[in-house]
Amino acid sequence: MGSKVENAGHLLFVMFVMFAGGKLGAEILERLHQPGVLGELASGVILGPSVLGLVRPSEWTIGLAEVGAIFLLFAIGLEITPQDLRAVGWTAAEVATLGVIFPFVLGFLFLRAAGRSWVESIFVGAAMVATSVGITARVLADLDALSTRAARVILGAAVMDDILGLLVLAVVSSMSSGQVHYGQLLVVGLEALAFTLVMIFLASRVVSRMDPHIAKLRARDSAFALGVMACLGLSLASMKIGMAAIVGAFMAGLALADQSGKWQLRQNFRPLSDFLSPFFFVLLGVQVHLQSFARGGILALTAMICLLAIVGKLIGCGLGSLHLGFKEACRVGIGMIPRGEVGLIVAGVGLTLHTISQNLYAVVLTMSIVTTIVAPPLLRWVLPRPESLSSGTETSQPLPSSSHPGAE
Amino acid sequence: MGSKVENAGHLLFVMFVMFAGGKLGAEILERLHQPGVLGELASGVILGPSVLGLVRPSEWTIGLAEVGAIFLLFAIGLEITPQDLRAVGWTAAEVATLGVIFPFVLGFLFLRAAGRSWVESIFVGAAMVATSVGITARVLADLDALSTRAARVILGAAVMDDILGLLVLAVVSSMSSGQVHYGQLLVVGLEALAFTLVMIFLASRVVSRMDPHIAKLRARDSAFALGVMACLGLSLASMKIGMAAIVGAFMAGLALADQSGKWQLRQNFRPLSDFLSPFFFVLLGVQVHLQSFARGGILALTAMICLLAIVGKLIGCGLGSLHLGFKEACRVGIGMIPRGEVGLIVAGVGLTLHTISQNLYAVVLTMSIVTTIVAPPLLRWVLPRPESLSSGTETSQPLPSSSHPGAE
Repeated sequence: MGSKVENAGHLLFVMFVMFAGGKLGAEILERLHQPGVLGELASGVILGPSVLGLVRPSEWTIGLAEVGAIFLLFAIGLEITPQDLRAVGWTAAEVATLGVIFPFVLGFLFLRAAGRSWVESIFVGAAMVATSVGITARVLADLDALSTRAARVILGAAVMDDILGLLVLAVVSSMSSGQVHYGQLLVVGLEALAFTLVMIFLASRVVSRMDPHIAKLRARDSAFALGVMACLGLSLASMKIGMAAIVGAFMAGLALADQSGKWQLRQNFRPLSDFLSPFFFVLLGVQVHLQSFARGGILALTAMICLLAIVGKLIGCGLGSLHLGFKEACRVGIGMIPRGEVGLIVAGVGLTLHTISQNLYAVVLTMSIVTTIVAPPLLRWVLPRPESLSSGTETSQPLPSSSHPGAE
Repeated sequence: MGSKVENAGHLLFVMFVMFAGGKLGAEILERLHQPGVLGELASGVILGPSVLGLVRPSEWTIGLAEVGAIFLLFAIGLEITPQDLRAVGWTAAEVATLGVIFPFVLGFLFLRAAGRSWVESIFVGAAMVATSVGITARVLADLDALSTRAARVILGAAVMDDILGLLVLAVVSSMSSGQVHYGQLLVVGLEALAFTLVMIFLASRVVSRMDPHIAKLRARDSAFALGVMACLGLSLASMKIGMAAIVGAFMAGLALADQSGKWQLRQNFRPLSDFLSPFFFVLLGVQVHLQSFARGGILALTAMICLLAIVGKLIGCGLGSLHLGFKEACRVGIGMIPRGEVGLIVAGVGLTLHTISQNLYAVVLTMSIVTTIVAPPLLRWVLPRPESLSSGTETSQPLPSSSHPGAE
């Protein structure tokens, strides 16, 4: 066989190993009643240079992971209509805002006190900001608690702090040079805000105006193809104005969410996201160098960041929902603890830009794993017991969580 | 921005350009009442080094194209159950066999007479073998003629000659070294035959036995994930025994076809194939060097190959179905003319293995385009007129053709 064919064979092999490894890990973690996404991360660690050395970052794997993150965020965006965002109201906004400020400030101050640089401290703080919508929703669904008031507040706030987290990422990305340019920061921040507002308030109207024209297109899968183009195109656009590609992908999803029933977008992009997102999570694991933890002080640092991540959300989100009563505030606070996609993406961007070290990357990844593991048992403890414990598997079927890509 | 992020941005850019360009081309060709796949090929020629130079073969684009071809053939396999293959009967088998032999022999003899090498002649002959199931079915659907006897024979034979074409490819691939090893050829041929028989007669039973176990798996998308793994895994397996990856992918689809309703495989893999297959067709176009045609004699060679491709199918398939009457034989012969995926794949493999030249690759691509353009008007001419000419768009909805990936 020629070298190019062997090459294509190798690309296929890497793809197979990443996908099968990720799914095996997910299956094992599900059996341990943990989110499958943790299994994908763990598989990545095992497949990567730390253990087996089968998968390395390359043009192929980086491309797959990038596309995986983009279509994951696009699919998450498709689940959320602009109306959802406007309807969740004041409590959710308060919970989201305080739940972003507290972990960020705690993480930032602690790292500065520990002698880290401004940029590093800001990056880690930013990675501690966003609750994982997917993981939270899945846990609530498994506990049969999606219809409770606490759950509605949690979901609304989790959606909002995803956007806040993405905005923070946009701002933080501009620090890639290692120096903070305040003027540039302001511009990027304003651009991100303008982009967000346009996408939330205008884009979906533009899209619904386009609807009759789409119907006229000849190609069978026009709506699907336009979805792919919107997702890739807005990802590129957001990179152009200095934001992360995933921000654009998420916004593209939001803009198309109103049409996603009619155009069968959710249904068609779910398999795409299911297929591609494992490459993202597995490659995140691949990029963890277990040796990082061997260094003195890193384990202690990790423990402290985990603690602050948990306490920050508990206090911030608890304060934001205190007027609902102490018990509800506890539920909301605990429900907001898990960090996932967005935090990992922030850390991944930081690593790629060389603004955070391998060590800090491993710390953030561990934080995301620990917060995700900690939340389900705690939530189970504070939430009212589901009427039948065995109904978890059936009830998770029709809920948003189960159609939430990458959330299992 | 760091170089790695720019790199990811470039990968996204190439992806966007290939997808959007391909879909634009498909839309234009659809409006000209031609198969969209021709538009994707043409876009590739324009995006490639011949004209714009925006897309080049690289690890990323080759990987995407490879995966695109694999999931396309997997999705085609999912449309065909082993029972379908066994039920189409003697006429279809006769049409398929003679329709494979005639073009192959004509193409081979002509190229030998024109002074080409054995391997080149065999490769081009092999690329002239397989009718495009997708394109044919789509044309029949558009003409509202899918329920006619001629159509059933055409579809059955088109499915069979796809398999014959893939078997020929398996045999032909073993000639990659440029020398023909007859012993090795025999082994590969027997392996391919054994593989095919196992997949058609045994694999689907094994899969249906697995069904209850699949239901026990925890991960939400287990059946989908197993489909991906079967597709990638059997692609790798078929490469291991010396066949093309797509043969394994097609067989994986066949084996899972019986379960594809229950496991929602068709529905979930269609978006995947719709998303990925344009990269395959666009990259095929990218690999055409328009300069090839400037060389003396190539245009004449192309015209001759096109003529032989058309005449070979007309005579071979017409003879195979002559007992149905002359008119029916004409319909079947014409319906079998379009060449598509498999021929392009054979030529692509030949190009990658450096066994056929750029010039011959361009000839084969042109042959596939010409046969595809020629068939629809001829078919329209010999088939009974549809009752209402305007019903074409509605009737194409529930038919296999419209759920046929990459066939638009």
